Parts: sequence; structure tokens; C-alpha cells
Amino acid sequence: MSYSKKIQGILKKNHIVPGCKIRVGEKEGLLMPKASGDGDVVVLKLKSGYNIGVRSLDIEKLAEPARRINAKKVEYDPAKPKVSVIVTGGTISSKVDYNTGGVTALLDPNEIVGQIPELKEIINIHKVVVPFTRMSESFDYKDWQVLAKEVEKRLKAGDAGVIITQGTDILHYTAAALSFMLPNVGKPVVVVGSQRSTDRGSSDGAMNLICASHLIAQAKSLEIRGVGTCMHGGMSDDYCYFIRGTKVRKLHTSRRDAFKSVNAKPIARISLSGKIDVYQKDDFEFGIRADTKFEPKVALIKPIPGADPDIINYYVKKGYRGIIIEAFGLGQVASDQWVKDKKMSWTSVIRKVSKKVPVFFAAQTVYGRLNPNVYSEAREAQAAGAVFLEDMLSEVAVIKLGWVLGHTKEMEKVKEMMVTNLAGEITERSEI
Amino acid sequence: MSYSKKIQGILKKNHIVPGCKIRVGEKEGLLMPKASGDGDVVVLKLKSGYNIGVRSLDIEKLAEPARRINAKKVEYDPAKPKVSVIVTGGTISSKVDYNTGGVTALLDPNEIVGQIPELKEIINIHKVVVPFTRMSESFDYKDWQVLAKEVEKRLKAGDAGVIITQGTDILHYTAAALSFMLPNVGKPVVVVGSQRSTDRGSSDGAMNLICASHLIAQAKSLEIRGVGTCMHGGMSDDYCYFIRGTKVRKLHTSRRDAFKSVNAKPIARISLSGKIDVYQKDDFEFGIRADTKFEPKVALIKPIPGADPDIINYYVKKGYRGIIIEAFGLGQVASDQWVKDKKMSWTSVIRKVSKKVPVFFAAQTVYGRLNPNVYSEAREAQAAGAVFLEDMLSEVAVIKLGWVLGHTKEMEKVKEMMVTNLAGEITERSEI
Repeated sequence: MSYSKKIQGILKKNHIVPGCKIRVGEKEGLLMPKASGDGDVVVLKLKSGYNIGVRSLDIEKLAEPARRINAKKVEYDPAKPKVSVIVTGGTISSKVDYNTGGVTALLDPNEIVGQIPELKEIINIHKVVVPFTRMSESFDYKDWQVLAKEVEKRLKAGDAGVIITQGTDILHYTAAALSFMLPNVGKPVVVVGSQRSTDRGSSDGAMNLICASHLIAQAKSLEIRGVGTCMHGGMSDDYCYFIRGTKVRKLHTSRRDAFKSVNAKPIARISLSGKIDVYQKDDFEFGIRADTKFEPKVALIKPIPGADPDIINYYVKKGYRGIIIEAFGLGQVASDQWVKDKKMSWTSVIRKVSKKVPVFFAAQTVYGRLNPNVYSEAREAQAAGAVFLEDMLSEVAVIKLGWVLGHTKEMEKVKEMMVTNLAGEITERSEI
Repeated sequence: MSYSKKIQGILKKNHIVPGCKIRVGEKEGLLMPKASGDGDVVVLKLKSGYNIGVRSLDIEKLAEPARRINAKKVEYDPAKPKVSVIVTGGTISSKVDYNTGGVTALLDPNEIVGQIPELKEIINIHKVVVPFTRMSESFDYKDWQVLAKEVEKRLKAGDAGVIITQGTDILHYTAAALSFMLPNVGKPVVVVGSQRSTDRGSSDGAMNLICASHLIAQAKSLEIRGVGTCMHGGMSDDYCYFIRGTKVRKLHTSRRDAFKSVNAKPIARISLSGKIDVYQKDDFEFGIRADTKFEPKVALIKPIPGADPDIINYYVKKGYRGIIIEAFGLGQVASDQWVKDKKMSWTSVIRKVSKKVPVFFAAQTVYGRLNPNVYSEAREAQAAGAVFLEDMLSEVAVIKLGWVLGHTKEMEKVKEMMVTNLAGEITERSEI
């Protein structure tokens, strides 16, 4: 704890420990442990779940900590499917320890089951693997490589499925990366996070884990496999969606149902009680194999109106091997036809660079499919070398491009692989 | 027409003109005029509305062109509100002229009303202004300046409101730009587009214009004003939403209801019959004044996991005066706390540049509000100088930044204006 001596003195005198309900000045909330910052500012977790800092010495104890959590011994039930949990950090794998006042990670199977006793009625969490712990916004491709290899190891050892817990910030990018790094994986690989921390009444982590467990327990009989996310499907606490790793996007900063299946139905709907409705089935050959080669020199560019296309040259000069552009509408950018200053024409720059660095278009609109055949500006961009990626999410496109370039640098092969559906990232056209 | 002589010969022999229903090889559709490309490829508009090219000499006429459109004389009805239409190009203001085979713009009040006779029952379109015509993806801030000044002129001349038609690609950017360039404008300024071209049965242009007309006709009595978009509200053809120009985002490539009100309710729902439900009212002082100063050297950066923050340095070196970053989650980027290689820490780069170039965070998730108080990584970014823009859309943020920097370069003033609600771009926090 790094509260100032003055604050520590007041807390001690009043028998206040982290987790106690207290009043500081005019604010009421739970005392939070202080990890950094000004030691005279008391951090409170408000009823809304958010933390605020209050600078005041007027501190009053209102109630003792609400709960103490004890890890329970878990018994192995051979009738239930064996599951490993790979823990990487993030909101879901942390809890506030009200005894010590620190934030600790849930790194032990017994502790996870102690927190969420429902899990042991569904699966055997026989192993918790912690390859690294980090907040997800600082992940990169090397972390995904570690995860893919760990999943391969666990599934080859006979697990019915693997649950990966991580921070939600880039959970959808991880799901996309693992979708390509575990080609056609024949068992469920479920990426799970929590939008709200585990000490909040509205925390979603427990339900997301319970639904993921149901999914793995029933996956074989329901023929569900592949990489996907398992997060709240709606505002209420009664079901999750298992969304394909290449079709999922985080679309809200804080809502528990922030993860949406874009341009495709979720694979399945899993109710908290264990009822599963399957919306999509895959019909390809399955295996267990990590294929993690990845070229990190890939860029995602989101133009705004009037933006200078020189940004493309910047990436080419820096040695980038492939570029995704979030084009406007059905696949348009500022074009030779309309821009007087040719230096400001995106198609003009694309025409020059696309001979050595492949350039792809994905939709800036998030939803929908690109179509080069409606407007001549899009055809101009296509003629200049831009390859249209159908209904692929731009975030998925840039991850896929890294994976494809990890396997080949041959221009035509790269383009061909990018427009070939490898992991459900391109869905069939519903109309021509 | 630039069809090859061979194709032109076959068309002539069979009395086929653009607009005729024909069969080419195995495909059926309407013959389209050919503006460019391979003259041996016949362009057909399919029933779905999309164009394809077919290389075949096997051409058969199936039916004459479906319709001929004649402009009608419009009479001035002094009982109806006077409205100007500013036409800038895009799908909504073009029609295929089946007589000449060319694509022509609707540049005449009589012609617009001739196409959509319902309009004259609602308003007097007494003037059509065509400052320029261009597909919208090639717009820049200078176009918005022209539009804002034109709107000012029309409203000062006594118009009840102005309709601006443009391509839908960047319609939401235009609506945002005009929201700032026409501060607190006291009459409705309605930006309208069409997702589907006017020769398609599913074209949305007519209904969008009719609803915009209803809105302007009733605006005074309903106390509706300000800049917004008027586009389909749902899948059916019975209502539009008038969405605030600073809260609208295009979220689908092709659907007619692609424009969504993000983090706020639409201002109003307008049924095709003219019934209007108002959801939001403004309580500020109104005026008519174009204030178009704009600094174009502003950048929008969308990081992906593992992205190199050197992109920030690139923009600073190029003389950019302000930067918007689409941060992950509640406002996180790869941080000093977690990234081993400090060159890859975004907060580290932000710390250096934010002293001379202001850096702002908006949400990569599209929906939701940033919050620097939940995670220490966000607080680290904030301490490094990143200014959090609440629930402001990133696209709106970068336009606002250009407008603010057009008025002041003084760092603290820029930051203060960016976090101040100027045109409804920041909505009140629903919970703390």
C-alpha cells in the first residue's frame, strides 16, 4: 500500500482495511488499495463500479468488507471433460484480495473453482497455465504465438477444449490471430474476458466462464469447434454468444455485450443453464496444429476525408510488407478522377506502391461488404492494385495479412490467400 | 459511349439503347452506358442493382427502357416553407438518362420535383445550388467551407431550412464538419444521401428527401434545428431518423439504414407520412453564422496490437498540429508498464510529443465512453498527456480538432475546447 503515512494512520485508527465501505468527504464507496499516485488521495470504488480519488482526511468507516473468498479443494470427476485454462491477465483473472489489499491473479485451478463453484459441475479444470500476464492492450504477435503453441500442447494432451482468459481490450484481435495460427482446429478454443471487474456485482467474468465451460462440455456432441469468443450476448445475465474468432469485434467500451458477430451469425448461443443453440456448423477437415509464422510489418490505415496518402509511402519506406486500408463506403478512396492535386490521390499512390507492397481494402463502416462493381472510383482503385477483401473486418484483415506474409512473400500468392476464406473470415455473398 | 465498334454495331442492329432489358450470354439485365474500360465488355445492371461486365457477342433485346422521366413545371406555393437544395453529386443526385445513355445530375428544382412529386406538397424548393459536384470520398475541408458559407447565405435569405445532397461515403464527416462550421445554427440543415441509385426499385433517395422536407416544414413548430442527417431508420420504407451531425456514423457499406446515432438518441423520427416524433431538444442560443476556419493538418491514428508508435512521430515531423488516437477499450494503449522495448510504448511517445502537439484519445470500439479512472494504463496515458474525449466519435473528434485548431493554436485552449461540448459531440454521462 502506498497511501501516505497520514492516511494510513487514519485508516489504522478506524480499523479500515481495503474492501471496507467508507465515507471520504462527501463520497461513499469501498476503500481500494493504492498502487501508485498521490498518497493523500483516497481511492474509492463507487456503487457504479468505477473508481474515484478523493482528497480528504474526513474518513469514516461504514461497514466491514463484504466477503472473504477462500479457495476450495477441487475433486477430479472423470465423467466430466478435461479442460485447461490459459490465464494471461486482464480484468477477468484478477480479484481484489480484501485481506491483503492487493490485486491478485487467479492462477490456481482451485482458486478459480473456489470463485465460481458452478464450473466443477460442468468440467474438470485440471490445469491452469500462465505463460505470461499482461494487460491486453500491450499484447503483440509473439504473445499470440505462445498462446497458439500452448493450446496445441493442451489439445494434443487430450483436453476437450481450452479456455483462454485475457483483457477485453484486444480480445477480438487475439481471437482472430488464433483462428489463423490454429488452422481448422478440431476442438473449441474459447477466448474469454470480463468487461467489469470481479468485485462488482455486475461482473460478467463468471457467467462468461460458465458458458464457455458448457460449450466445451457439449462441443463434441454438438459438433462445435474452432476459435471463438464467449461473452455476454445481451444486457441480461442469462446467455453468451460463441462468436467466430474472425467475425468478432468489440463495439462498446464498457457494456458486457460489447462483442458483436459482424456480417455473420454467432456460432452458438449458450444459456447460463447450459442450453446451447447452434447457428453455424463448419464442414472442413479438422486437426490440431499450431502454425504461428507471422510477419509483424503490416499496417492498418484509416483515412479521413482529405487525408494525405503519403502515409502509405511512410509504411513502405519503413519496410512494411503489406497494407490494409479502411476504404470508404463500398470501397472508395480519394481518386484520380476527382482530386486535382495528384499527390492527394490515394489511387495514385496505391498504383505506385502496390507493385512491390500488396495493398488491400476493408470496410471503414465495420458492417457490410465491399463491392468494386458499383462505382467507377472503386474500379479505379482496383485497377490501381487495391485488392478488395469482401466482408472481412479490417482488424481481422491486418492480422490475417501478418499471418499470410509469415508464410509467403510472393505477391500473387499473398493476394490469393488474402481473398481465400481460411478461417471463416469471408462469408458467402448473400446476394450477387 | 465507348463500347467497341463491334458491340455498337450489334446494339444498333437490334435497336438496343441504354436502359433496355437485354440478355448477354447467360446474364440478363439493363444495358448500362459505358464510360471507360474494355469496349468489348457489356455492362449490365442486374436485378440486384449491381453492375457486372459480360464479354459476349450473344446479345438479345428483351424489353424497351422502363421509363422516361420528364421535368415538370413547379408552381410556387407561398403557404409552404421555402427550402434550398445544395447538390454536390453522389448517388442521390444522379439519374441514368435512358435517352442519351449518360448519367446526369439532378440540377434543376423542376427536375427534382419531377422525379419526386411528393416534395411539392410539403415544401417549395425554390432554389437548387450546385457549388461543385464530386463523389464524396474525394471531399476535403475546403468543400465543407463552401457548403457552410452557402448554407449561411441561404438561411440569411430567409429559407426555412437547407437540404444538402451528397454521396453517402463520408456523409457523416460532412455532417460533423458543418455542425462545427455552423455553430448553433437556428434552422435545420439536413444532409441527405442515397445508398442505392435512383434507378433501383430499392432506392432510398426519394424517401430520404421527402422525410427531410417534412422535417424542415415542421421544424419551427417542433423546435428542431441544427445540422443532421436524414436517412432510412430501418429496413422498411416508412421512416427516417434525423441524427445529430456529431453523433452519426455510417456503419454499413450498403444497407439503407447504414447511418446510426451513436451514444445518443436521434433528434427525431420522421415517418414518410409526415408524422414526427422528437427525441431531443437543444436549449442553447441560436443564430446563423458560418465560421469555417479549419486546420487540415490533423491526423487520425488507429493502432493495432503491437503497432509501432513511431507513426505519431511521422505526423509530428510532417508538421501536423493535432492527433486523434483510437485507443483500445476504455482508453488504453501499449504502455510503459508492460512493453519491454520502450520504443514500442505508445505512452512513451505520447509523453514526448504531447508537449508541442496535442494528442487525444477516442474509442476504437465506436460505441461507449472512455474512462481514464478504471485502469492504471489509461491513467498512465493521461499522465503522459493524452486527453480523453469522453463519448466523442473518433471521426467527429478529428474534424472537431481541425476546426478548433483553425481558431487557436494555443495548447491549453485547444485542449479545453476539445473537451467542451460545442455541438452535441459530447453527451452527458448517464452514470458517473
